[in-house]
Amino acid sequence: MADEKVSIIVFSGDLDKALAAFNIATGAAASGMDVTMFFTFWGINMLKKTGPRKGARTLLGRVFDMFMPKGPEKLPLSKMNMGGMGSVMMRYQMAKKKVQPLAEFISMAKELGVKIVACTMSMEVMEIPAEDLNHVDEFAGVAAFLEEASKSKITLFI
Amino acid sequence: MADEKVSIIVFSGDLDKALAAFNIATGAAASGMDVTMFFTFWGINMLKKTGPRKGARTLLGRVFDMFMPKGPEKLPLSKMNMGGMGSVMMRYQMAKKKVQPLAEFISMAKELGVKIVACTMSMEVMEIPAEDLNHVDEFAGVAAFLEEASKSKITLFI
Amino acid sequence: MADEKVSIIVFSGDLDKALAAFNIATGAAASGMDVTMFFTFWGINMLKKTGPRKGARTLLGRVFDMFMPKGPEKLPLSKMNMGGMGSVMMRYQMAKKKVQPLAEFISMAKELGVKIVACTMSMEVMEIPAEDLNHVDEFAGVAAFLEEASKSKITLFI
Repeated sequence: MADEKVSIIVFSGDLDKALAAFNIATGAAASGMDVTMFFTFWGINMLKKTGPRKGARTLLGRVFDMFMPKGPEKLPLSKMNMGGMGSVMMRYQMAKKKVQPLAEFISMAKELGVKIVACTMSMEVMEIPAEDLNHVDEFAGVAAFLEEASKSKITLFI
Repeated sequence: MADEKVSIIVFSGDLDKALAAFNIATGAAASGMDVTMFFTFWGINMLKKTGPRKGARTLLGRVFDMFMPKGPEKLPLSKMNMGGMGSVMMRYQMAKKKVQPLAEFISMAKELGVKIVACTMSMEVMEIPAEDLNHVDEFAGVAAFLEEASKSKITLFI
Repeated sequence: MADEKVSIIVFSGDLDKALAAFNIATGAAASGMDVTMFFTFWGINMLKKTGPRKGARTLLGRVFDMFMPKGPEKLPLSKMNMGGMGSVMMRYQMAKKKVQPLAEFISMAKELGVKIVACTMSMEVMEIPAEDLNHVDEFAGVAAFLEEASKSKITLFI
């Protein structure tokens, strides 16, 4: 199992799916697998820095940015979000059960050598400048994903 | 194709995705493939027993249980659920077209030897005691999933 | 990487996921991979012809057809659709950033030899007659998908 490659496309920007993705990624990396995560579309939201925006944006780009969650603390649940209450309940319950929050999963992934790739087409369309993102090892398109996935034993779309 | 392994993560708790997952799982098992399904997060809802709860729960655990569908007959559709009407229409239409309901797909999967694994981290966070679940062959975490997936020809996240 | 097989189940009928699916499919086909896309459930909506329906439908079949998007121009976003406004914003932004619309991605996939398969069980349940679909190379069930997937290096459920 060690030395195998794992490729995960993180398309979703929901807390629950993000937790699943990082749980698999860190579990695989911890057992010696070589893991790459490709963040695309809503998935990029969890890599966003909080605080004032640095990169230039058109009006529509600012609207996109305004409506979208910024960083791991802000993601909604895919189900039963109930205006954010479901998400708060889930975070509370995770803390009580000693499951680390998403931000810590991301740090752990970085420490374990998981490669974080941000999809350049999504960044272009949603006007997300590189300087507004955290944790990214590489900016790349679909060709880079296919290159990794074609060598991977496990490939997931989350 | 026979003798190959298939691993399916069932993350979703929606009727339509559950049907897709079990359609693939039973199809694969029927043609001799070795299938494991890992139920995590909302996916665990479809394994829940109906009737009074047996396991102990905190208040928040009871709230989670109350808001979540219990068993295969209660799952909503991921789209066009329309307060349950879409789900009823889909079940009616499936019956008319002689497609078996989800509960029968689950029984069929069990008969064909599909291995049903429930994710212990999800059970912990959502306070789902083992005695409130049906059909489970094994309770395990992400490491068990990776072990199976690293030997599988087909791995899906649904 | 060339000569490898890729199998993609397109279950979702959302614009954003459809774009991701076709971006991967056309990228893979362009680099010489052998790609099959299986359209099932809501995914079939994007293959629907616009204009008056040709095939026979029961009343419930007409209701399904009425409520569901027809063709690539009508798909909603999975998140932030905001009654269609999000979808319009996304299409506008894609055009400005010179990303081709979904309809062109589909044509491009066809030109690159991507095989388009429509799931017969979904067509049966949702009463979608073959003559109301575009682009389909083959009508088939789960067995055909498993046959392809068991020979594929990359298999995704989108």
